[in-house]
Amino acid sequence: MKDICFGVDVGGTTVKIGLFQTDGQLLNSFEIPTRKEEKGKYVIGDIAAALEKELKEKHIEKERVAGVGIGVPGPVLDDGTVNVCVNIGWGVINVANELGTLTGLPVKVGNDATVAALGEMWQGGGKGHDSMALFTLGTGVGGGIIVNGKPVNGSHGAGGEVGHIPVVMDETEVCTCGKKGCLEQVASATGIVKEAKKLLAGSEKASALRNYEPLTAKAIFDEAKKGDEIAMEAVEILGKYLGIAMAHVAGVVDPEIFVIGGGVSKAGKILLDAIEKNYRQYVFHASRDAIITLATLGNDAGMYGAARLVIEN
Amino acid sequence: MKDICFGVDVGGTTVKIGLFQTDGQLLNSFEIPTRKEEKGKYVIGDIAAALEKELKEKHIEKERVAGVGIGVPGPVLDDGTVNVCVNIGWGVINVANELGTLTGLPVKVGNDATVAALGEMWQGGGKGHDSMALFTLGTGVGGGIIVNGKPVNGSHGAGGEVGHIPVVMDETEVCTCGKKGCLEQVASATGIVKEAKKLLAGSEKASALRNYEPLTAKAIFDEAKKGDEIAMEAVEILGKYLGIAMAHVAGVVDPEIFVIGGGVSKAGKILLDAIEKNYRQYVFHASRDAIITLATLGNDAGMYGAARLVIEN
Repeated sequence: MKDICFGVDVGGTTVKIGLFQTDGQLLNSFEIPTRKEEKGKYVIGDIAAALEKELKEKHIEKERVAGVGIGVPGPVLDDGTVNVCVNIGWGVINVANELGTLTGLPVKVGNDATVAALGEMWQGGGKGHDSMALFTLGTGVGGGIIVNGKPVNGSHGAGGEVGHIPVVMDETEVCTCGKKGCLEQVASATGIVKEAKKLLAGSEKASALRNYEPLTAKAIFDEAKKGDEIAMEAVEILGKYLGIAMAHVAGVVDPEIFVIGGGVSKAGKILLDAIEKNYRQYVFHASRDAIITLATLGNDAGMYGAARLVIEN
Repeated sequence: MKDICFGVDVGGTTVKIGLFQTDGQLLNSFEIPTRKEEKGKYVIGDIAAALEKELKEKHIEKERVAGVGIGVPGPVLDDGTVNVCVNIGWGVINVANELGTLTGLPVKVGNDATVAALGEMWQGGGKGHDSMALFTLGTGVGGGIIVNGKPVNGSHGAGGEVGHIPVVMDETEVCTCGKKGCLEQVASATGIVKEAKKLLAGSEKASALRNYEPLTAKAIFDEAKKGDEIAMEAVEILGKYLGIAMAHVAGVVDPEIFVIGGGVSKAGKILLDAIEKNYRQYVFHASRDAIITLATLGNDAGMYGAARLVIEN
């Protein structure tokens, strides 16, 4: 009986590995370092060795293992080909084939952000739903789209790249992606700090934010909760553009639920309120009642979603 | 052998019915009037009778019929429930069950715009692809999204409602949907006429458009082709906002191909050029090379796509 599977989340610094029961129960999790030297050529071998060791230590026969799901920080095509992972050093590589050959186990590959969405749907904020959009607000803005229980990889591996949806039409600065006006430029931790600094520079108003060095996203939300006007305005800008971007997503796939994750989501209710008000205003009426909630799995979402890849697909 | 199927496209005035081979060959097509009296209660019975008559006339045994696909002008949930069709008079009705009971055939239901996308993918502009977005530029703007060969209905039946994606942030007029700034307000036949009129009113410039009464979308494209500056500017506005909306779609589902249909698409190359330039500018780089092309099935797309519903699902 195939009652066990692995979920592997490959990051730029560490690889997170989860040993799961196929019913979603996490049995054990651990990390190994991501060896990026020589264009990341050791990463897959290291993962294979770690999986073998874990099975041996836990006295689990390989026959019980349904497979290995793996999330990687780059575009993934439907056949398991990874098309350049800058953070790892990989070029074009078929992770499914390589890890499958080394372990003798079925391997499924997904983009890390898309896989995190699958994890949140399976055991996190989106549990009980099968049509979901995840927005991950961290240093940048990532995301993942699930339609009828299946992640949308996109034909160029760019499904769910919601951070680069154009929303600020009069933006003058250039995004890391080379365009101007991306959601990431205003709705990431970096983005809200940048917007708050602009507000501070353009106003004589007293603000507690003037006392922070460096100014952080957390400080902005904390001061907004206390009623600081400039901080509240910065939160409102983030909420406006995120609400608009979510309305775009609704106009395409009309999800049941939006899940907001990443470091910025720790702000909690004040963030949800700012997003929700704007989403309801900008979205087509049929999608107005979509649920908007917070992610619950934190940094484990990718590991959960990777495991889920094996079970569902 | 199930080698025959029907594709039915229910419109506000007529119902188009196509008799197909399951390999995509259209054998015959005809129309019956849409009897909207008494909240459209006769429509399904009329369709059932027309199908029976067609089989009898063509001497086709019912055993050969794989099923009936039907596209309706309203939101459709995955279980075949239609959630209010204003144009027909229907409230909440399970078309699949009702038509299935009357005909004894399997019935699949889809939203008309989504089904048209499926038709264009099967035998039209998107042939050979399985990940596609259709934008239908008519009196309004409709659309349909296909991911991995399957239409995206959305959890409230609003998948592919691209006409109401918010794109014009400073729009002052209200859209038919009640919001402001929808794509439909600038990229439909009505929208481009409205924008051209605004340009004419705000300028002293000579323009051939001043001689048209009433001014039409066709006139604007015709004069733009001849170099009329105001007409060219109106086309550019449409291209800009459609390009932006397509960039939004790419950031969500990253399709292989965009197909542009509806009456406005008869403008041809000048329209594609205006869209393409803007799309390439606003979209995330991974999706930059998506194909942009014209629909080819015209008003038959819905009939084709409805037939396809039966075969694929």
